[in-house]
Amino acid sequence: VRVRLLGTAAGGGFPQWNCACPNCDGVRRGTVSAVPRRECCVAVSADGHHWFLINAPPDVRVQVESFRPLGPAGAVRGSGIAGVLLTGADLDQVLGLLALREGPRLAIHATAAVRHSLEVGLSLPSALDCFAGADWQVPPETLAPLLVRDGSRSGLAYAALPLPGRPPRYAADRTAAMPGDSIAYLIVDGTTGGRLVVAPAISALSGTTLAWFGDCDALLVDGAFWDDLELPRLGIGKLRATDMGHVAVGGPDGTLAELAPLPVPRKIYVHVNNTNPMLLDDSPERRAVERGGMTVGQDGCEFEM
Amino acid sequence: VRVRLLGTAAGGGFPQWNCACPNCDGVRRGTVSAVPRRECCVAVSADGHHWFLINAPPDVRVQVESFRPLGPAGAVRGSGIAGVLLTGADLDQVLGLLALREGPRLAIHATAAVRHSLEVGLSLPSALDCFAGADWQVPPETLAPLLVRDGSRSGLAYAALPLPGRPPRYAADRTAAMPGDSIAYLIVDGTTGGRLVVAPAISALSGTTLAWFGDCDALLVDGAFWDDLELPRLGIGKLRATDMGHVAVGGPDGTLAELAPLPVPRKIYVHVNNTNPMLLDDSPERRAVERGGMTVGQDGCEFEM
Repeated sequence: VRVRLLGTAAGGGFPQWNCACPNCDGVRRGTVSAVPRRECCVAVSADGHHWFLINAPPDVRVQVESFRPLGPAGAVRGSGIAGVLLTGADLDQVLGLLALREGPRLAIHATAAVRHSLEVGLSLPSALDCFAGADWQVPPETLAPLLVRDGSRSGLAYAALPLPGRPPRYAADRTAAMPGDSIAYLIVDGTTGGRLVVAPAISALSGTTLAWFGDCDALLVDGAFWDDLELPRLGIGKLRATDMGHVAVGGPDGTLAELAPLPVPRKIYVHVNNTNPMLLDDSPERRAVERGGMTVGQDGCEFEM
Repeated sequence: VRVRLLGTAAGGGFPQWNCACPNCDGVRRGTVSAVPRRECCVAVSADGHHWFLINAPPDVRVQVESFRPLGPAGAVRGSGIAGVLLTGADLDQVLGLLALREGPRLAIHATAAVRHSLEVGLSLPSALDCFAGADWQVPPETLAPLLVRDGSRSGLAYAALPLPGRPPRYAADRTAAMPGDSIAYLIVDGTTGGRLVVAPAISALSGTTLAWFGDCDALLVDGAFWDDLELPRLGIGKLRATDMGHVAVGGPDGTLAELAPLPVPRKIYVHVNNTNPMLLDDSPERRAVERGGMTVGQDGCEFEM
């Protein structure tokens, strides 16, 4: 499986349009050692021709344009996008579906809970039906072939790994929490056997989750906040990381301490919030990540398994 | 009034993510003389500090980042955006409102028809209320002060110029056509008296419309398609320009023939579709535009009146 990180920042991107925290201000002025990042989106493919996007952020148009295999080939209109796999219904995971409306009928893989939130909170499936339209598929809980829209095999198999979650903030008053609000994906290459786990939002790490995360060749995992009080400490509102559905990276209960021991060759943080100090190449937090055998994802990073 | 063109392309941008028409293919390969363009968005300000966006395209985040005065100044979070003026409810005009959710409460100027389409078709006002929230104001039909959110004057006055229109495609089966589906804005600087008209979507040019367009110092006007059959001729679907709510630029009944005689110092085409041959710097169509005393807008272009 070929994996391309199209975007690696949390919602708002890095720098975030309205943020002047030390990271954002520094990267704008060029006074810190860090690179800008688009909102989180990952593309995967077995054959290099049929690509699946994991989530569809608002600026997906720019992200698609950044990676030639996702663009048109041959015909006057076309795309290498064979489908979109949603891990949740948050705005930064789904708004790009509407930006893809100009293409052919979309294949969208989403749990019933996610599709419900999208319909109740944004009328998104109905709106899409007025343009390209979409075929909605519920991802299987045990490995099954991931098909291309014409029914042929993509060379990949996939499964949804259920995570604790809740409905997105825009639908929270209309939709009760349901199983499937948040999932991760296991993606397996039918030829090489390479196993990828993609989990851009994690609100808690259970033993079951850790067992899944430990059983793969590459793990792309939620690196939103370094610590639970990151935003209040910077004077940005009152919400803790956990209030926003993210376990922090640092600290004794953070994901770094839990994930560092896992025998996984590639462990990469994605969905990194603009305030996270590990975005700085020379920060103590970045050194801690690297000492733990993990890396901080960057847009354009690509690998194969 | 200071005017900045943040984006000058129609929905999909230029190049469009899934398009390999001669323009898109050429600009990607660097084989034509043309520059990429983001989706249409214009920023205006009297004082250089309080800026009003005309429409909010999906990639508004990148557009804000491209123009420093729109970013934060002083506080850890902030923005130079004092309000958003909508001309319609099409997806490429409104999706960016949700990308601005992370900021302070938004001031959105929209007709009752536009707000209705957004609520019925996308639940957008309700979704925004779960984040920053918004104050919705109906733009006046005769010149009135354009206020900053705290109630102080921005130095600009504005009025809505009603245009023939219809509800956006995503709401067309749920919403009947209403007055106010599509408008242009007249914006007047209280100090200099400079008059700007912004009309990014025009489905027909009446005598009344031409009279408004002729009575200003700068006109930003719909340049979506060169001719009515542009898309079918390229093998891209069956829709004519008029089916999509745009009068063509070229031809005896086109906007160029109608607007060229107007005694307006600056007449600039914006909202240009990726297929339009006037995007090429050396095309006969570009020469025709320039012979008519008009120009084709480019991202980053700025002027003051």
